[in-house]
Amino acid sequence: MSDIITAAMVVIGDEILSGRTKDRNIGHLAEMLTAVGIDLREVRIVSDDQDAIVEAVNALRARNSYVFTTGGIGPTHDDITADAISAAFGLPCEFDEKADALLGEHYAKREIEYTSARRRMARMPQGAKHIPNPVSVAPGFNIGNVYVMAGVPAIFQAMLDNVIPQLKTGTRLLSATVPCKHGEGTIGEALGEIQAAHPETIIGSYPKYQDGSFWTEIVIRSRDQAKMEAAAAAVEEMLKKL
Amino acid sequence: MSDIITAAMVVIGDEILSGRTKDRNIGHLAEMLTAVGIDLREVRIVSDDQDAIVEAVNALRARNSYVFTTGGIGPTHDDITADAISAAFGLPCEFDEKADALLGEHYAKREIEYTSARRRMARMPQGAKHIPNPVSVAPGFNIGNVYVMAGVPAIFQAMLDNVIPQLKTGTRLLSATVPCKHGEGTIGEALGEIQAAHPETIIGSYPKYQDGSFWTEIVIRSRDQAKMEAAAAAVEEMLKKL
Repeated sequence: MSDIITAAMVVIGDEILSGRTKDRNIGHLAEMLTAVGIDLREVRIVSDDQDAIVEAVNALRARNSYVFTTGGIGPTHDDITADAISAAFGLPCEFDEKADALLGEHYAKREIEYTSARRRMARMPQGAKHIPNPVSVAPGFNIGNVYVMAGVPAIFQAMLDNVIPQLKTGTRLLSATVPCKHGEGTIGEALGEIQAAHPETIIGSYPKYQDGSFWTEIVIRSRDQAKMEAAAAAVEEMLKKL
Repeated sequence: MSDIITAAMVVIGDEILSGRTKDRNIGHLAEMLTAVGIDLREVRIVSDDQDAIVEAVNALRARNSYVFTTGGIGPTHDDITADAISAAFGLPCEFDEKADALLGEHYAKREIEYTSARRRMARMPQGAKHIPNPVSVAPGFNIGNVYVMAGVPAIFQAMLDNVIPQLKTGTRLLSATVPCKHGEGTIGEALGEIQAAHPETIIGSYPKYQDGSFWTEIVIRSRDQAKMEAAAAAVEEMLKKL
């Protein structure tokens, strides 16, 4: 189908892989993309290592409509995302005049020294477009189908709000949820038969474990409302018989 | 260094990529591995799709000491991890006699029907070893350097507790944290110089944004206590001068 828009995400940061910081951006991006009908197909969390970033970004941008990255665009030595994305595209990483001016002005206004560390945040691949940062000015950037954003959740979310309206969006995947008091083992076989009979839906079952017993959330997804409703009705019918 | 043990994680599940369920296993695994001196190098979140799982597992098991997977080992049609891992290793996916007996007995004792859906949970690659599941019996499994565990956090954690003691562990990466009231832009340059002067440490700086201003957590990591302390002292010295 031509209207399926896919995306991948690359989370950049040693602090996530060490467990020191818990990621809060994956779930937010996933929800936002689902809301506008873009399928998030894969997420990779990689370390602050240029080769690792280049490999992930190049693999994912080749097979998805969009790639979103978070992390590594601050002013310190371990912020290497601008260099890595430039390397991935084979472009020079340069000081962007407009970003440099924005940052210089921002710090001058607040009487804070515009250090060479802060000036690093004006670097991006040649020809990249800014992603505005209403929180702390230093812009993210977009090059090709890759959108490079901050890792701090408040800044990431503000940047993403500026990116979403620019994206080509798909037909939204609709979903219906049917709660089920039985564990997956009780319904698994019948649910498999319903899935086979309703090929244009995606039926997922998500086990919930609470106080020593299982219950299940059954989610029916489709881009076609009537087909989703027919599958949901079949699930409800099946549950009534138990 | 021969004592560096690396790991990767594959999180399997459409529900994470749609944002419907927020992953709680990545942070837990990251913390546990850090605690025993294993470097988590990469995490991939993939959908309930055999090709996607095979690609991720094969890429990651070739270049890491261990691969840990979560999700997709329940009794329903969308639980395809056992098949996918078997395909990744080129092994048949078979009913495991011991798992079949365990599950049969478990359900018999509770007077619950041992349906063919439940019996699916006894399938694993030929020759796999069990990972005990003290919560809900259905075992995870280990084949080669890949450890396949449940996605439900309570079960994943219980399985992981059984896996960790079997692993070859590394020299633990020690860490010291120095809080810094300045933003990264103020300290970035000096911190880069300290990193250059202390090559056997990894100095990370993590921006925190709160109530309209930035502060920074500086983390110094090393496998050598003396080298870590020397770098931390240099950071503290630098901060005093600001």
